[in-house]
Amino acid sequence: MPAPFDLTLYLVTDPRLVAARGLLATVEAAVRGGATLVQLRDPQAHGRALVEQARALKALLAPLGIPLIINDRVDVAVAADADGVHLGQDDLGPADARALLGPHRILGLSVGNPAEYAASDLSGVDYLGVGPVTATGTKADAGAAIGAAGVAAVRALTRLPIVGIGGIHAALAPEVIRAGADGVAVVSAICAAPDPQAAALALKQAVTAAR
Amino acid sequence: MPAPFDLTLYLVTDPRLVAARGLLATVEAAVRGGATLVQLRDPQAHGRALVEQARALKALLAPLGIPLIINDRVDVAVAADADGVHLGQDDLGPADARALLGPHRILGLSVGNPAEYAASDLSGVDYLGVGPVTATGTKADAGAAIGAAGVAAVRALTRLPIVGIGGIHAALAPEVIRAGADGVAVVSAICAAPDPQAAALALKQAVTAAR
Repeated sequence: MPAPFDLTLYLVTDPRLVAARGLLATVEAAVRGGATLVQLRDPQAHGRALVEQARALKALLAPLGIPLIINDRVDVAVAADADGVHLGQDDLGPADARALLGPHRILGLSVGNPAEYAASDLSGVDYLGVGPVTATGTKADAGAAIGAAGVAAVRALTRLPIVGIGGIHAALAPEVIRAGADGVAVVSAICAAPDPQAAALALKQAVTAAR
Repeated sequence: MPAPFDLTLYLVTDPRLVAARGLLATVEAAVRGGATLVQLRDPQAHGRALVEQARALKALLAPLGIPLIINDRVDVAVAADADGVHLGQDDLGPADARALLGPHRILGLSVGNPAEYAASDLSGVDYLGVGPVTATGTKADAGAAIGAAGVAAVRALTRLPIVGIGGIHAALAPEVIRAGADGVAVVSAICAAPDPQAAALALKQAVTAAR
């Protein structure tokens, strides 16, 4: 089993949205504001660049006790000694990923709705990313928005920790938490914010107040 | 160390070129014609589809004693228990890949010219893919064509096995072998051929006759 991890405020990076401020500066500000978990996501980047980015993030986050999750690439996660991997439905199967990751890394899986949950191999999965909650501009291949009701529907099916994702902002976060999510994952609400630290703080407060 | 492998005629698959005939049928014909090594290359495919393709190819090739190499994705290679990985200069570093692959899988590295060879970390590398020998339509990000003279220039720098790649056809293969390559890698010369088995046979004969 992985060490305990905290899904309260899960930052997912976007290479275009962080370009102006820089990846490390954005993540650092988000963590200062209260982000509890960070996912490196850059579907267009090649393996070597991803490993370099992951190592830089790991050096920033490990001393702060914030786990680093890598989107999709299990090989990159192991090479950079990241804390885990987040898989979409088109990525390596969870059992294949778990065999490569060993027992102690965190393994997350995206689930778009109850039917997708029911069809998923959940062996070795530590948490679920459920969404998109609302329409999102940052992920072209995201499925149909499921709303807080969709989060509640998946919540009713599983005891795994759940993080809601997809177009979530501070005003929407309480509804997602009340639907049973253990936390919220955001991309643009932090990466595109004028002040990522303040944005993270507002999100964190919204989540904790709604519990 | 990996078991001995034979670079004589190295088929690299292309998803568009094999689409009409099918990946497995194309590879099967190529092997019947004399291909000695097969690389699964599909840069647009997601991890799960790659693992499925790799497992199907492995089931075809393992009984024939033909090694299966996976382009880029070390995680896919390990998940599918393929025989090795081929890395470009933008992919995971060879040392990182070797750590994931263990000592017995084959590790290949693309080298575009003598300068790139000199700048490369070759730890754990078992063979080099050198090219493009001529201009190629199947790889958009390939570097400048280096000709047989470029292959000879890299040959002079290393004792690693070398396979020439990039726009090679049967009439060009002898020149590449005489430049010091141990074999030729081809994409369209087999994948786009009306008869992949006959195309492989002609290439194999051209290589062996030039030795």
